Amino acid sequence: MKNFLDHHFLLHNETAEMLYYQYAAALPLIDYHNHLSPKDIALNRRFDNLSQAWLEGDHYKWRAMRTNGIQEKYCTGNANDWEKFEKWASTVPNTLRNPLYHWTHLELQRYFDIQDLLNTQSARKIYEEASTKLRQPDFAVRSLLEKMKVELICTTDDPIDSLEFHQKIQLDHLNFQVFPTFRPDKPILWVNNQAAFNQYLDQLADVSGVEIRNFQDLKYALEARVDFFHRLGCRLADHGLESIPPAATTDTKTEAIFDKARLGKSLNPEETHQYQYDLLFFLGTLYHSKGWTQQFHLGALRNNNTRMMRSIGPDTGFDSIGDFKQAKSLVRFLDDLDKNNQLPRTILYNLNPADNEIFATLIGNFNDGSIPGKVQFGSGWWFNDQKDGMERQINALSNMGLLSCFVGMLTDSRSFLSFPRHEYFRRILCNLLGQDVERGELPLDRELLGQLVQNICYYNAKNYFEFIHKK
Amino acid sequence: MKNFLDHHFLLHNETAEMLYYQYAAALPLIDYHNHLSPKDIALNRRFDNLSQAWLEGDHYKWRAMRTNGIQEKYCTGNANDWEKFEKWASTVPNTLRNPLYHWTHLELQRYFDIQDLLNTQSARKIYEEASTKLRQPDFAVRSLLEKMKVELICTTDDPIDSLEFHQKIQLDHLNFQVFPTFRPDKPILWVNNQAAFNQYLDQLADVSGVEIRNFQDLKYALEARVDFFHRLGCRLADHGLESIPPAATTDTKTEAIFDKARLGKSLNPEETHQYQYDLLFFLGTLYHSKGWTQQFHLGALRNNNTRMMRSIGPDTGFDSIGDFKQAKSLVRFLDDLDKNNQLPRTILYNLNPADNEIFATLIGNFNDGSIPGKVQFGSGWWFNDQKDGMERQINALSNMGLLSCFVGMLTDSRSFLSFPRHEYFRRILCNLLGQDVERGELPLDRELLGQLVQNICYYNAKNYFEFIHKK
Amino acid sequence: MKNFLDHHFLLHNETAEMLYYQYAAALPLIDYHNHLSPKDIALNRRFDNLSQAWLEGDHYKWRAMRTNGIQEKYCTGNANDWEKFEKWASTVPNTLRNPLYHWTHLELQRYFDIQDLLNTQSARKIYEEASTKLRQPDFAVRSLLEKMKVELICTTDDPIDSLEFHQKIQLDHLNFQVFPTFRPDKPILWVNNQAAFNQYLDQLADVSGVEIRNFQDLKYALEARVDFFHRLGCRLADHGLESIPPAATTDTKTEAIFDKARLGKSLNPEETHQYQYDLLFFLGTLYHSKGWTQQFHLGALRNNNTRMMRSIGPDTGFDSIGDFKQAKSLVRFLDDLDKNNQLPRTILYNLNPADNEIFATLIGNFNDGSIPGKVQFGSGWWFNDQKDGMERQINALSNMGLLSCFVGMLTDSRSFLSFPRHEYFRRILCNLLGQDVERGELPLDRELLGQLVQNICYYNAKNYFEFIHKK
Repeated sequence: MKNFLDHHFLLHNETAEMLYYQYAAALPLIDYHNHLSPKDIALNRRFDNLSQAWLEGDHYKWRAMRTNGIQEKYCTGNANDWEKFEKWASTVPNTLRNPLYHWTHLELQRYFDIQDLLNTQSARKIYEEASTKLRQPDFAVRSLLEKMKVELICTTDDPIDSLEFHQKIQLDHLNFQVFPTFRPDKPILWVNNQAAFNQYLDQLADVSGVEIRNFQDLKYALEARVDFFHRLGCRLADHGLESIPPAATTDTKTEAIFDKARLGKSLNPEETHQYQYDLLFFLGTLYHSKGWTQQFHLGALRNNNTRMMRSIGPDTGFDSIGDFKQAKSLVRFLDDLDKNNQLPRTILYNLNPADNEIFATLIGNFNDGSIPGKVQFGSGWWFNDQKDGMERQINALSNMGLLSCFVGMLTDSRSFLSFPRHEYFRRILCNLLGQDVERGELPLDRELLGQLVQNICYYNAKNYFEFIHKK
Repeated sequence: MKNFLDHHFLLHNETAEMLYYQYAAALPLIDYHNHLSPKDIALNRRFDNLSQAWLEGDHYKWRAMRTNGIQEKYCTGNANDWEKFEKWASTVPNTLRNPLYHWTHLELQRYFDIQDLLNTQSARKIYEEASTKLRQPDFAVRSLLEKMKVELICTTDDPIDSLEFHQKIQLDHLNFQVFPTFRPDKPILWVNNQAAFNQYLDQLADVSGVEIRNFQDLKYALEARVDFFHRLGCRLADHGLESIPPAATTDTKTEAIFDKARLGKSLNPEETHQYQYDLLFFLGTLYHSKGWTQQFHLGALRNNNTRMMRSIGPDTGFDSIGDFKQAKSLVRFLDDLDKNNQLPRTILYNLNPADNEIFATLIGNFNDGSIPGKVQFGSGWWFNDQKDGMERQINALSNMGLLSCFVGMLTDSRSFLSFPRHEYFRRILCNLLGQDVERGELPLDRELLGQLVQNICYYNAKNYFEFIHKK
Repeated sequence: MKNFLDHHFLLHNETAEMLYYQYAAALPLIDYHNHLSPKDIALNRRFDNLSQAWLEGDHYKWRAMRTNGIQEKYCTGNANDWEKFEKWASTVPNTLRNPLYHWTHLELQRYFDIQDLLNTQSARKIYEEASTKLRQPDFAVRSLLEKMKVELICTTDDPIDSLEFHQKIQLDHLNFQVFPTFRPDKPILWVNNQAAFNQYLDQLADVSGVEIRNFQDLKYALEARVDFFHRLGCRLADHGLESIPPAATTDTKTEAIFDKARLGKSLNPEETHQYQYDLLFFLGTLYHSKGWTQQFHLGALRNNNTRMMRSIGPDTGFDSIGDFKQAKSLVRFLDDLDKNNQLPRTILYNLNPADNEIFATLIGNFNDGSIPGKVQFGSGWWFNDQKDGMERQINALSNMGLLSCFVGMLTDSRSFLSFPRHEYFRRILCNLLGQDVERGELPLDRELLGQLVQNICYYNAKNYFEFIHKK
């Protein structure tokens, strides 16, 4: 019988403990994909209280509260910080077996040295204690990152973003590196929403200094932005899609589709897919020429509650897992890039865990021997970012690919308090390996296993991406 | 090493035992969805022998027998009760690792205090002993239910059913409550089968006293039946579908489709889907106005063996799991109801376990804070009603939603001997929680865990449904 | 803590050990589906070195090497045998948790009595030692099979194959039996690739002695080949498809489609599907009339890398798991055969493990009581041929069908060194059963369990197929 969240949390045998403490625990963090605010880092924000730090933008928590019967007023509404925290605290005991229960107490322990369980009774005391700390300088966001041994993080940024905060951060010469990620998303891909599309293109023309009269101009403008991001250290792009759109690849047709869209004429689904496919293909070749890594987050069904979408907007906790066909169009896209020797390093994140084996095998079609693990199956994403989900991703990758080449964990988080999730991942990884060893299914070769652990937790990411490391 | 099916069956650690015996074991049963015969309850049927009680309508057992090489004569054919039982007994040892093996011996133990394993050698003795008991008054079906501490059950009934047996049961003031469930199914939804459709509508007109000349009349007739069911305590509806039909929602068009169907004109698939969607939408608003819960059983591919369908009819063990797309049309349906603030409490049962995570996340889109767990992911259904299937449903719900809000187990059974499945579920639930505690992944807080167990096993169902409880 | 790959490898409790050693270990092997070379058996080939025996045609290993960053030169290219082996040896430590790691060391132990772990350091010594043995007469391929107690194997052969090597083998009166399997594949099914199709039909006409002017002639020609294969002991057919093609069944239409194809006119997808469906249906009736078993390997997305397909051809390690809809068209196909009482014994292999439950339940629709387990869910195939994959297949089959009727393991391999995979399967099976017993979820009835183990490992296959056994 182990105590909850004790020293050996998630480490269920001695080999797992040995691997974690001797090889994983001390390594710094490369968090190559998250949604942290560059502004908060640039201004070294301090939070007034734990409610702000935890509940301000965390749709995971809002969603759990709604499920628990808490009114919207206390999630995204006009209740005050304490009232919201109190409702969250009353929800926490009802999140048993959900990752929120582990994350909550792991964060209380690691950042605030608070060992108590959060519930209605303990809420006030924990709130006061953590909030008092958060108001101190050594709990400003840069310190929060340093406490977790963060070495490098990549935020997620719009192609038209001025990156002013990234520029400011880089002038500050912090102890860790912060780079932007290029994420062309809705307006530029959703060409069928023409008002937003055309407005966005005007903005893109402005910031890039490229007049956008045709599809070729759009490519020039994007190239200019990629150059700009590259100069600020960006080496990653990211895309969020239900699936890779099905389409034929003929550039000329896309020129005409683009012209229709610019004139505000309506497009049929085939035209939309064609445009999206060609734009993604062009971007892929661009990333390849720059030595970037392209990421795809596939399979989410977003903003499913119209009433709430109208009232509080997107990304507020009304998303779920879709059942899209992924394999054929994704294979075709990567193959098209590969045919031209223009396939960049690629990381594929999968939301539907039933498709894990599709992704774990699909990546093997395009590992060409140029670098280890060129095409990656990304770590358990979003709803899969929990113990079962991580284990399923690790097991699928192990059984059907090479675990040893995996670039490992990332937080994908909006929260400065979410970095213990790297520890969570590392413990789970070491536990799986330790379990195999204890069962005689892996050899007890410390050096071999230790190297595997260190590579997955740190060195693979360090070597895979072409960041210009400070040290 | 534990003995087969002993006192601690399925409870693999001390915390699990503590939780089961101190919190779960003594709770009464609310079996809110099953297919028991109201007639059998009204007449307090006694079975002549174990063959009748077990094999009369149990397509699970027939299916296992056929797989084992047993001829149809001994499944649904004209062999006598003993001959059928003997063939079943010879099949049982070949069901090792199938839930039938556990269910069979659990039922022998719990109802008949028989500890022997059933096989060809023991068949005669077990048959005699159990059949002798079954012929006693305290083994009539009402007693069978009372033995299992049944507090409330909901049968499944056709909208045109007179509910005469339900009326009789309620006059008898039993120790447990019995309510009907409103299940509009094939003839009324399968509008493309027009002979059956029109015949059914005539019957519906008869029993409802509403002449059905158009779609609006159909709605009036259904409303009358919902009122009638409601007066007899019904608070649940149920629907069995491959998936929610894709369709646009415009009432006028459906009026015309309905008219075509009434005139016997053929409908294309789009028209059929449109009609089905609108009827389901209307029913949803009706259930909402009554405070009912709507249930959807999704994903079955039914009656797949034409030869046997012709010879012995539907629901005879020739069904399997389908690979239908579920997410988009289901989201759209629930969202349409929610947009109008007319989404009733909803329970979604999923047949394809690969879709568990889709369902576990989809429900979170419509939990609006009005009541805990307003939209539910139902317990492991049909082929998933076994240990692995239950664990997968519980784990998906835990990881991606709130287990604490779950309304728990139901038998979905035609058999009066199947109620130990609640015990089976409770043991599995306690074992999962105990395992987490022992591993330090949940805190050993007896009160917190005990309450969780009691809520899932009993109180959540008691509070969720708007039954008028006797006590 | 167990040592890696020791005596009790994969056997994690005493019951598992008892079952494996007392019931499974000594049984001979019936490998009813593989891709061994009849020529190699006929000529009793000896390998020059371990590189030839392991790396010559093994796309699993090439794929792992590419993922590990090894250039194509060392996979399928012109590097010499030792260079290739050295690169493979350097890859092996990076395959931890992949089945290749287990297979590699299991094969070194079982065939060569080499206990060392393969890596860069040990490569030369292991290479010399194993290669020296391989050059001895008692390591010729027939001896390799005999060492593993092979009793019967079925290779995979083209309908137009002369089977000359099979004829030669049968004249040699070996200690084991070798039969062909009838595998009509690409050219005859891919009617839309008309050049290859027509060329193939000309060859088929030649070898069958039947002039093929129309679809009926094609059937006569295939019937002649089935007769020929049957005379050489063939009792199995095999088909590799993404999924069963959707189609209506009307013979006349297919005649016209066939005529178009013979004239080189292009076919639309519906025509192609119709032709394929009707050909498969005809073949099914033919197999039924002969007492054969038909096998279907469903769900692979093949040859996904165009660049490599052009450079080194098909089946070279660029395949992955597809997300095809399987259920409806497969049900319909089997039902069509069953309706006519012409459904042969059938084994369905599934590549996408998310579909396991679909297959495990689908087979139950067509088990008609004629023989136990008439329609089978085949053992974990290809990417699923590893511990997790086998366990998932066994568990799905157990929970949703009858494990007891399962015909068990097959290698599906091109390698004469892959037969320890039967041992691997047997250990996994015994471990699952032992685990259930230890947990009190199965009774400790040695005879009952021992019989189950022996049936799945040997006797079910022996009884299921209609081979003419020598002994």
